[in-house]
Amino acid sequence: MNNLHELVRELRQPSQSKIVLLVADGLGGLPLEPGGKTELETANTPHLDQCAREGVCGLSIPVLPGITPGSGPGHLGLFGFDPLEHRIGRGILEALGIGIEVGPNSVAARGNFCTVDRNGLITDRRAGRPTTERCAEMCQLLQQIRVPGVEILVEPVREHRLVVVFTGENLGDAVNDTDPQQTGVKPLPAKGEDEASQRTANAVNAFVEQAARILHDHAPTNMVTLRGLSRYPKIDTLQEVYGLRAVAIAVYPMYKGLARLVGMDIADAGSTLQDQMHTLERLWDRYDFFFIHFKYTDSTGEDGNFDAKVEMIEKLDAVIPTIRALKPDVLIVTGDHSTPSKLRSHSWHPVPTLLLASSCRTDAVEEFGERACLSGGLGQFEAKHLMTLAMAHAGRLGKFGA
Amino acid sequence: MNNLHELVRELRQPSQSKIVLLVADGLGGLPLEPGGKTELETANTPHLDQCAREGVCGLSIPVLPGITPGSGPGHLGLFGFDPLEHRIGRGILEALGIGIEVGPNSVAARGNFCTVDRNGLITDRRAGRPTTERCAEMCQLLQQIRVPGVEILVEPVREHRLVVVFTGENLGDAVNDTDPQQTGVKPLPAKGEDEASQRTANAVNAFVEQAARILHDHAPTNMVTLRGLSRYPKIDTLQEVYGLRAVAIAVYPMYKGLARLVGMDIADAGSTLQDQMHTLERLWDRYDFFFIHFKYTDSTGEDGNFDAKVEMIEKLDAVIPTIRALKPDVLIVTGDHSTPSKLRSHSWHPVPTLLLASSCRTDAVEEFGERACLSGGLGQFEAKHLMTLAMAHAGRLGKFGA
Repeated sequence: MNNLHELVRELRQPSQSKIVLLVADGLGGLPLEPGGKTELETANTPHLDQCAREGVCGLSIPVLPGITPGSGPGHLGLFGFDPLEHRIGRGILEALGIGIEVGPNSVAARGNFCTVDRNGLITDRRAGRPTTERCAEMCQLLQQIRVPGVEILVEPVREHRLVVVFTGENLGDAVNDTDPQQTGVKPLPAKGEDEASQRTANAVNAFVEQAARILHDHAPTNMVTLRGLSRYPKIDTLQEVYGLRAVAIAVYPMYKGLARLVGMDIADAGSTLQDQMHTLERLWDRYDFFFIHFKYTDSTGEDGNFDAKVEMIEKLDAVIPTIRALKPDVLIVTGDHSTPSKLRSHSWHPVPTLLLASSCRTDAVEEFGERACLSGGLGQFEAKHLMTLAMAHAGRLGKFGA
Repeated sequence: MNNLHELVRELRQPSQSKIVLLVADGLGGLPLEPGGKTELETANTPHLDQCAREGVCGLSIPVLPGITPGSGPGHLGLFGFDPLEHRIGRGILEALGIGIEVGPNSVAARGNFCTVDRNGLITDRRAGRPTTERCAEMCQLLQQIRVPGVEILVEPVREHRLVVVFTGENLGDAVNDTDPQQTGVKPLPAKGEDEASQRTANAVNAFVEQAARILHDHAPTNMVTLRGLSRYPKIDTLQEVYGLRAVAIAVYPMYKGLARLVGMDIADAGSTLQDQMHTLERLWDRYDFFFIHFKYTDSTGEDGNFDAKVEMIEKLDAVIPTIRALKPDVLIVTGDHSTPSKLRSHSWHPVPTLLLASSCRTDAVEEFGERACLSGGLGQFEAKHLMTLAMAHAGRLGKFGA
């Protein structure tokens, strides 16, 4: 993969062309019955079908066949990074998810409020799933914790979940989880695998010790465990690799965070798809690459609501003319993974993908859907190659070798 | 790739079978309008269509999705070498292109005649694009240059371009370009990154110094710059890897040179496709592997002449019966890359490919064309795998493992 990026750096050439990457989160689906239609096939999508006819289609394999990605690897693949080579720690992803900006001197952890008995043994790893309000109150209590030489940020996520970010000089992230993943035992002390990580471990232990005192009388949320300690990954930016001025037009913090990770500017995108379209129009002259993220195809899939997912796909279809009116040189519509409502979860199934550009080789695909895309000209391809295809169709890659 | 070649060496077995690789340069194309037909789809190709029905089809990805190859990487892929692992320097390719035989003790450079002012600053990097005749005259002047211990060959290419080959003991090729890629500055002195390369750099500097004196009164062609200094790449031969006695039946020097690079014998192939067919018949008993190169599908594509490319494809189709009459065990028809006349250049689009052998699993493809090949049994595959497929269908590969 580094080779692919080196190759792209070597071949890329300046251009005024513009690329739009429209990601319908969890786009791919499943029929409810064998031989039935998927959500995308059921939806009435005249504009996407028109794109499929004029463009080239295929199916994107997010990581490898059979591998179901989370949002992190799913998006990294679409941004042209090998998701197996660039891992994003759980702590970092949780921090991104609530919009915390994590810098290179920080280590982020996922936290759980839990319940311990008088001997300090865990009786409930999730503290009876407190309300999110209570979670916020408890976090406020923990914000008084001070550890010398390390700045600590505590933010609630939801129910028993929180994020703790440690910021300081030379903090490593090779630190074990303090969550023992079972009840009847004490939380584990943190240990660092190297000097820098031991500094982090010391801060973690100091934090947990003070937290235990502060939370002592607040059962069932009377203790906290930390896991997934991780630093902000070192990753090249889209500017560095592709020479693209890139902007993310996303509503949810997680996706803004993932975009920031690869160096995109983050637009103030409002809260609706219409807001996102206005943002796109407003920023059109200032960027080369536009990542537009649409969340609701995933969330309806996770809810197991087939009809609602169909409706969300139709909503997405309705904005295609707005995007096409801007005349992007390359328009890609895809997803970061499948989220079949039948499974109520992310899945490994390849994701229907279309690419529209004047230089694309049209295929026989007449509509945008899972089965139709099987006969598409892009074939089935690993998601990490999509950016190279976008660059080629945008006239931004020169010839390799003479 | 080395692994693939090691595997092939391990599995290959003797056979009397014969393989024909017919390369229509730049074969793949694009429709002029979305939904229209490509050049190949437009052409009337009864014989290729017959092969498609009797054989198995697919699409070859020359390097990686989205990567447009030059002729060098395009052919190396077809010959079974990973084009990313075996790079051919610009100087070598330029030398191959004009039919210069470059040996393992040589370093080849692309040269430009340029114009310098009285202070030696470059005013025109291409010397006002002189005629090819003048280029030849100037090269003749430069042929008098002598540098002790190094043999120097100077040959004209076209307009301002020439080739200079340095031959001697222990010459390295880690030498910078002397072309500064801008005007208003002097040509750069050559420097070697190691001892062997410094020897080359010394020869380059001595050559350039004498060239400056000789060309002094010949403005605008009063100076020369060199770039792309490169040695003949070390590459295994088809004999070594595949155990094949291979011959190239090509008309253009570049393709003969590329074939020589992988150890093929070079036939005296005449100048027309008919000559090439006679050569094939003449050499049939003496070789196992026949690489036949047809240039005009590429050159018409580069000219942007859709109709002429169609015509050239039909010419190619007409010789298929001649090849089949020889009863090759494996016949492959493909291209080294696409050259859509719509783009007037090489492109990244996958290349229609057919393989005909008694052991092939026929698919439902009824005609040889880009869209038809999408449903072919070979699928979309990286070009470097084609030789292994050829070997298998030729009964030249044993079982891997027990």
